[in-house]
Amino acid sequence: MENENDFNVETVTQYLSEKRFRELKEAGLHQAPQDLAEILTELEKEDRVLLLRLLPKEKAAETFVELDSDSQADIVEAYNDKELSDILSELYLDDTVDIIEEMPAVLVKRLLRASTPENRAGINRLLGYPKDSAGTIMTPEYVRLKPEMTVAEALAHVRKVAIDKETIYTCYVTADDRTLLGIVTAKALLIADLNARLSDIMLTDVISVNTEEDKEEVAQTLNRYGFLAIPVVDNENRLVGIVTVDDAVDVLSDEAEEDFAKMAAIMPTETPYLKTPTKKLFLARIPWLLILMVSATFSSMILGFFESALPAVLILFVPMLMDTGGNSGGQTSVTVIRGISLGEVEFGDILRVAFKEFRVGLCCGGVLGLVAFGKVLLVDRLLMANPAVTVTVALSVACSMLITVVVAKFIGGMLPICAKKLGFDPAVMASPFITTVVDVLSLLLYFVIASYVFGL
Amino acid sequence: MENENDFNVETVTQYLSEKRFRELKEAGLHQAPQDLAEILTELEKEDRVLLLRLLPKEKAAETFVELDSDSQADIVEAYNDKELSDILSELYLDDTVDIIEEMPAVLVKRLLRASTPENRAGINRLLGYPKDSAGTIMTPEYVRLKPEMTVAEALAHVRKVAIDKETIYTCYVTADDRTLLGIVTAKALLIADLNARLSDIMLTDVISVNTEEDKEEVAQTLNRYGFLAIPVVDNENRLVGIVTVDDAVDVLSDEAEEDFAKMAAIMPTETPYLKTPTKKLFLARIPWLLILMVSATFSSMILGFFESALPAVLILFVPMLMDTGGNSGGQTSVTVIRGISLGEVEFGDILRVAFKEFRVGLCCGGVLGLVAFGKVLLVDRLLMANPAVTVTVALSVACSMLITVVVAKFIGGMLPICAKKLGFDPAVMASPFITTVVDVLSLLLYFVIASYVFGL
Repeated sequence: MENENDFNVETVTQYLSEKRFRELKEAGLHQAPQDLAEILTELEKEDRVLLLRLLPKEKAAETFVELDSDSQADIVEAYNDKELSDILSELYLDDTVDIIEEMPAVLVKRLLRASTPENRAGINRLLGYPKDSAGTIMTPEYVRLKPEMTVAEALAHVRKVAIDKETIYTCYVTADDRTLLGIVTAKALLIADLNARLSDIMLTDVISVNTEEDKEEVAQTLNRYGFLAIPVVDNENRLVGIVTVDDAVDVLSDEAEEDFAKMAAIMPTETPYLKTPTKKLFLARIPWLLILMVSATFSSMILGFFESALPAVLILFVPMLMDTGGNSGGQTSVTVIRGISLGEVEFGDILRVAFKEFRVGLCCGGVLGLVAFGKVLLVDRLLMANPAVTVTVALSVACSMLITVVVAKFIGGMLPICAKKLGFDPAVMASPFITTVVDVLSLLLYFVIASYVFGL
Repeated sequence: MENENDFNVETVTQYLSEKRFRELKEAGLHQAPQDLAEILTELEKEDRVLLLRLLPKEKAAETFVELDSDSQADIVEAYNDKELSDILSELYLDDTVDIIEEMPAVLVKRLLRASTPENRAGINRLLGYPKDSAGTIMTPEYVRLKPEMTVAEALAHVRKVAIDKETIYTCYVTADDRTLLGIVTAKALLIADLNARLSDIMLTDVISVNTEEDKEEVAQTLNRYGFLAIPVVDNENRLVGIVTVDDAVDVLSDEAEEDFAKMAAIMPTETPYLKTPTKKLFLARIPWLLILMVSATFSSMILGFFESALPAVLILFVPMLMDTGGNSGGQTSVTVIRGISLGEVEFGDILRVAFKEFRVGLCCGGVLGLVAFGKVLLVDRLLMANPAVTVTVALSVACSMLITVVVAKFIGGMLPICAKKLGFDPAVMASPFITTVVDVLSLLLYFVIASYVFGL
């Protein structure tokens, strides 16, 4: 290919059909694995396998890791055992485990068979950790040093083992039983006197996480301290693995995208939007739409109960009340849900949240009630010349607005915290759910207040 | 302090009041800067300055960087010029720029005065880049190597300059005019033969970004390729700085939190929820609530126009239609907004999005319409024994549901893309805004369809 930027789905397909394999291989060598993976995903299955076969072992393995699980499954199916073990020998164990977790059982067997006995044991150990725990995202391939080593010895050791380790930039100093004693960064090793002992230069205030800890908390801890890697220890403080920054970033962004989806009443999907088939989008969206639609029955009941007894003009302001209530509650619930996700809000803060939201609700509700009062009289009565819109009506709307907003903000703050406490996902308690709850409450409040104001 | 875990706001305040400075200093040395910063933020202003003064220069600087901008301003105010230059000399330039950007003008002057002339020039250059560009988050403190160096020479150079560089793990090979030629990782340097030339071992397929590029795109590029740092070049491909992974992660998580806020119709604030005062929360939330509330006037107008002409029973299903329409549109808009934020959806995809959402809308609308038809007849007619709920009513509701969902999903997909094209923030086009638009449309559709069905 003349230019590296010409490497795209069209040219690759053309070169493959013209069997210009050597040029393709040459051009592929200059591409980043992530870019190769993007192109591979869009190729036909046969072409995908063919192009990956053209790449040298190391590049092929790096690219394989970046593929989505469907494409990976295609490769595993098409490759023979020898090819598979070539790829697997280049992978880090945590990546292998990620791949295996998404693979159909029959292909998992092939992958395990193609692994070395040592790796197979490591994979099985990692697969044994609880779902979403630190153990499932860590890698056991870290650099382990001994406290009595000199810097020169440590550097020589690093040089020897570096090729197989996911990171060499943080090295771990352990006792013989693998108890974590301290860490030494590659920077410290490079700067220090070659004769210094590691026990003298290592940092001993080590922040570590437990294998059982939730992977989201692990990622947050790593992120909070700006680490490139964080050590994972068992209950006896023995080092069993490390989590690197790239995996932590993936965890955090996956969790954020999941929260976005759930807050919009969508079941999370893992594929990017444009690559998700219509059927999958439909299935991800319809359950909550149905549940929320059927829940609106309560609103119908309330409307049916009061409708005939109260002046018809009150109906005009139902959408405004319902929407403002829903928006007010949604603001609070999204804020609190993110606070919970980021570890800033816990169950113990429930009273602080309640008090804060009560005050914010009073402020917002007060302003909205006042503006609604003025708006109803000015716009709906004067401008639209509707004599049925009386001061009494405006007063009912304004009072209902105030109380609805206060209640909506209170509920929006409490539901996510309680959901979390009860073991549900707080993200589900976002706008769509809150809206449905607040609809019913705002209608009830509105009609009860109106009944009172109109002296019924 | 007996135990490191005893280091908290209460014990620190107590020790400070008892003037047990030496013990406090000793205990503080074992704390991570991020943890120290968290405690400092919660202390009284005098105690904050006092505790920071107790810490050695390097620890104090690391802690200072982690403080929120209000606390930083307190420190700058209280410190004398000598103390300030001690702190500043320990900071990386990009951190200094971050701090200066948030500081009142009078304190900025003091900070600049306390900087070395060289740093001052660097700060002013970084401050000159366009808002939110790569230039504003990069650091010029990277390791620069020459292609003719041997590995041994390179290692010696790294050892010499390491202390002042934000990262030494990726080194940049440049020509004399600073044109970027390639990169060498510290791992490669450690593994390679000491006599090898950098020109032979460096990677030349370098992925770099331009100084003017948006910082969010820069962070996404770094993240996509799993880099620890990414080089920033000017229009002549001359290396001017690097962006490190920790800063990229901050950019991505800030942008995600901003999107969460905007999607919930909140003006983004930077402080964590529980630390944000009520007044600030109120001011962040009230503008959109007011705008959206007043916009509901259109719904009132439509209700007022049709209300008297159509059977009153139709009103019962208004909340269900409005909510389901809003939820349907919200699902799509959130999906598309995140697609835009993550760089997966662009203006050129508008037809693909339109077609996809049209099909998803038909599927969702079809199912929801059918279920609504059954639900209205079974629950609202039979179960609630309301004879006014006729098959004609159920048919009106079902048809309106189908069309509303299709329209809502179409609008939810188009508005964010068009907003982006017109230079607005797509995140504002999320549920609350879409809900208000869809309310008006769903009411109009419902009443027009009903008028037709009832033969008016």
